[in-house]
Amino acid sequence: MKQETADKWKLYVDFLRKIKSYEEAVALMHWDLRTGAPRKGAAARSETIGLLSTEAFKLQTSGQMNDFLKYFNTPEVMSELDETSQRMVLNSQEDYDNSVKIPPEKYREYAELTAHAETLWEDFKENNDFNGFEPYLTKIVAMNQEFIDYWGPKETRYDTLLNLYEPELTTEKLDQVFGQLRDRLVALVDAIAASPNKPANPLLNKTYPANEQEKFGKFLLNEIGYDFEAGRVDESVHPFEITLNQGDVRITTQYLLNDVASAVFSSLHEGGHALYEQNISPELAGTPLSQGTSMGIHESQSRFWENFIGRSRSFWEKYYGALQQHFPEQLKGVTAEDFYRAINTVENSLIRIEADELTYNLHVIIRYEIEKMIFNEGLKVSELPKVWNEKYEAYLGITPPNDSVGVLQDVHWSGGSFGYFPSYALGNMYAAQFAHTIRKEIPEFDNLLKEGNFTPIREWLSDKIYKYGKSLKPAEIIERVTGEELNPNYLADYLEQKYKEIYGL
Amino acid sequence: MKQETADKWKLYVDFLRKIKSYEEAVALMHWDLRTGAPRKGAAARSETIGLLSTEAFKLQTSGQMNDFLKYFNTPEVMSELDETSQRMVLNSQEDYDNSVKIPPEKYREYAELTAHAETLWEDFKENNDFNGFEPYLTKIVAMNQEFIDYWGPKETRYDTLLNLYEPELTTEKLDQVFGQLRDRLVALVDAIAASPNKPANPLLNKTYPANEQEKFGKFLLNEIGYDFEAGRVDESVHPFEITLNQGDVRITTQYLLNDVASAVFSSLHEGGHALYEQNISPELAGTPLSQGTSMGIHESQSRFWENFIGRSRSFWEKYYGALQQHFPEQLKGVTAEDFYRAINTVENSLIRIEADELTYNLHVIIRYEIEKMIFNEGLKVSELPKVWNEKYEAYLGITPPNDSVGVLQDVHWSGGSFGYFPSYALGNMYAAQFAHTIRKEIPEFDNLLKEGNFTPIREWLSDKIYKYGKSLKPAEIIERVTGEELNPNYLADYLEQKYKEIYGL
Repeated sequence: MKQETADKWKLYVDFLRKIKSYEEAVALMHWDLRTGAPRKGAAARSETIGLLSTEAFKLQTSGQMNDFLKYFNTPEVMSELDETSQRMVLNSQEDYDNSVKIPPEKYREYAELTAHAETLWEDFKENNDFNGFEPYLTKIVAMNQEFIDYWGPKETRYDTLLNLYEPELTTEKLDQVFGQLRDRLVALVDAIAASPNKPANPLLNKTYPANEQEKFGKFLLNEIGYDFEAGRVDESVHPFEITLNQGDVRITTQYLLNDVASAVFSSLHEGGHALYEQNISPELAGTPLSQGTSMGIHESQSRFWENFIGRSRSFWEKYYGALQQHFPEQLKGVTAEDFYRAINTVENSLIRIEADELTYNLHVIIRYEIEKMIFNEGLKVSELPKVWNEKYEAYLGITPPNDSVGVLQDVHWSGGSFGYFPSYALGNMYAAQFAHTIRKEIPEFDNLLKEGNFTPIREWLSDKIYKYGKSLKPAEIIERVTGEELNPNYLADYLEQKYKEIYGL
Repeated sequence: MKQETADKWKLYVDFLRKIKSYEEAVALMHWDLRTGAPRKGAAARSETIGLLSTEAFKLQTSGQMNDFLKYFNTPEVMSELDETSQRMVLNSQEDYDNSVKIPPEKYREYAELTAHAETLWEDFKENNDFNGFEPYLTKIVAMNQEFIDYWGPKETRYDTLLNLYEPELTTEKLDQVFGQLRDRLVALVDAIAASPNKPANPLLNKTYPANEQEKFGKFLLNEIGYDFEAGRVDESVHPFEITLNQGDVRITTQYLLNDVASAVFSSLHEGGHALYEQNISPELAGTPLSQGTSMGIHESQSRFWENFIGRSRSFWEKYYGALQQHFPEQLKGVTAEDFYRAINTVENSLIRIEADELTYNLHVIIRYEIEKMIFNEGLKVSELPKVWNEKYEAYLGITPPNDSVGVLQDVHWSGGSFGYFPSYALGNMYAAQFAHTIRKEIPEFDNLLKEGNFTPIREWLSDKIYKYGKSLKPAEIIERVTGEELNPNYLADYLEQKYKEIYGL
């Protein structure tokens, strides 16, 4: 590397580190707001978050950043860099291009609009008032349409939004995989609905003290290898994982007194996200590559630990005894097999975040299809409730009695996150594909779960996925690890096998 | 006000608000480091604190700030401003003058060094490892010496540090008041040591569960008027109060299982700091005047609530019953009078933060004398343990068995807070002087304590002290409120009267 390049590289890395500092501060402020910050400080806090986020945005779109990119992102200079450094430059260039195309006053207007709409959404949902929400959502959609024009439409207009969360994925590909998946899952769901063999749920109508739930949840996190010296576990209304820096990867959960499963699975879910972040190569620390590569791959890891491990029979063969020790009265007479069947009950329900492992995917596909209609076919916001309800009837055989438990149920659209929902089902498909591969490469996989020996599994995932952070694209990871591109049949196969056995189909 | 002045004023206030945003982020990061942030994230966190502190520092010392000050800080423009606005300009000017003299890279290096050293200090203290701590402390002292040169030494080099915390106070004045105080207190301590009338301590050798301590501590905080919607209470090794914004004033305490009094008095102490910050005039919110005027006045409020209220007989006449309800077994047969005497036991002990109200001042005077030796006489860091132990023997008649309970006991030096310690004894002197005045102006003071009616007291303090924030100097406050300058005899009189009664002298 030439001396000039070496000198500039050092300045560039320092510059990126500075942006990371703002991001760490803003992340901590968000974490704090959701884990017990006092009410009266919230207004000033929002202002502080706004000010510091704007500073980060200014750096991201600054002439200084442009100068770095102009220097590094040329064939001659790129040839001096190692592969990871090249990836870092390309990643910076993408972020820069995305940010710089939006006029700052639009960015501010949009940030204010969505912050406001997110706050109002809670009331609109509570009051079942889609008409009240409509003008806000219409404006948010219109601004996203504007942004698509600023960024430049891809194969379809919706592809541009999709790629904010899942780089390089196309609507064409998603139509194909979601289409295949939907057909197989709808058939499975119908068969289950017709089955007379419904597992009982002996976990209901009991009280599970929060402190015992907390102990057990932390015990499981420790078992799967969550590093408590590089994170902490708190309570919040909506569980989340948040990374402050590579040595500080936090998760939250919620302890519902009448539901022993909720905190267990949200701990494993957020724990999966955290294992990804905690095991990124230390060499990437402090750079923009020190994060999961996409929302879909991130979600594959939360789902892998939550479902492919946490909802398996082998896992509970090992841990059900421990759970019973925490709740001896509540689980008296409930066998491990009863428990396994209870946590794998399939039910066609209205609310995505409460859905089981199988029908969850249909909730997501419905949202994907509607988002595409909005951005590619000009579906009007006023028509959303009608389209929503028709799709719930078609795929799940149920019609929401009101918009509160229908089109108004999710926060995402009020925050402007169009293109995000597919990540959830992508995560399940990626996870199934990874699970298929790991079972081939580690044939004793199930025995490891029965022994509670997660080290070989975590090391495999770290070596194949986690360590790369954002230095590989999602499609590269899935192809390198599994030898083929995204294939929805692994998820469909897994779900058919699992649920046919449980429901005796 | 001229239009030009009005326009510039708005920009100036926004600019100051931006600096506050950085300060809020940095304060939250410090709070977080001390209340459970994971160990492995601390190094990156220190770097982030360093970076964001530096940004605040750059704004503070920017050409833009200088332009504002050049415009506002002239006789003509000042005459257009109201008194509070004038104070704000003068305060900005002082901060600017102090900051502009330190090169930004020095400032950043220092912020990172102290953030890092503070984190390491806990381990060094735990492991009784002064040798490990020495290089950090040596570097911190050396950087403070450099800063003194940048700022310009005052009457002595140490005066420069002292004035960071107590504006306008001199070492000469402190030598005089500490001298007077020490002479009277040493005589009193000697008399107590010679007294055969030693109160028993029936609180010892018992276990007080942390959750009950927490409940009682929070109950007392609520009683004195701490606003839980504008703050939160957590645990940390070293209790502290920290203000994130005017609606978010946090305190911490520590629950020692074998000591029921520690958390009670640290809650009242930090609660006193918090009452000051929570009751600053809302008009000052978001400005640099929205904070206590000096460390000494701040400490006067923590001491006022901890000692002049919390260690009084009247207070426990009201609250001892409630304490007994939390610890019925432990306090069986212990009367309110037994308790009062137990919490006012005078004992020559090693640990400042556990010291009684009387000997506490001697702990502070020892630190003051050592700091003066370091900065005015070139005492080496390596010699600190020796000097420390000699002074403890000389003033208190005891020698620390190890550095953990000796020179390593306080966090302050690891954070670079040289010149801070005198504030603690100043606080006691100010508090005694305020207490003398409030008893004249509110003759029913003791009855209010007996009734648990703190509203008139809090309102008096708010009206005379709290609401002004930093818009009055410490000397102005003490003179306006009490009609005279700092006078150590009020503290000496109060202590003599109190302890002669308790020890029957």
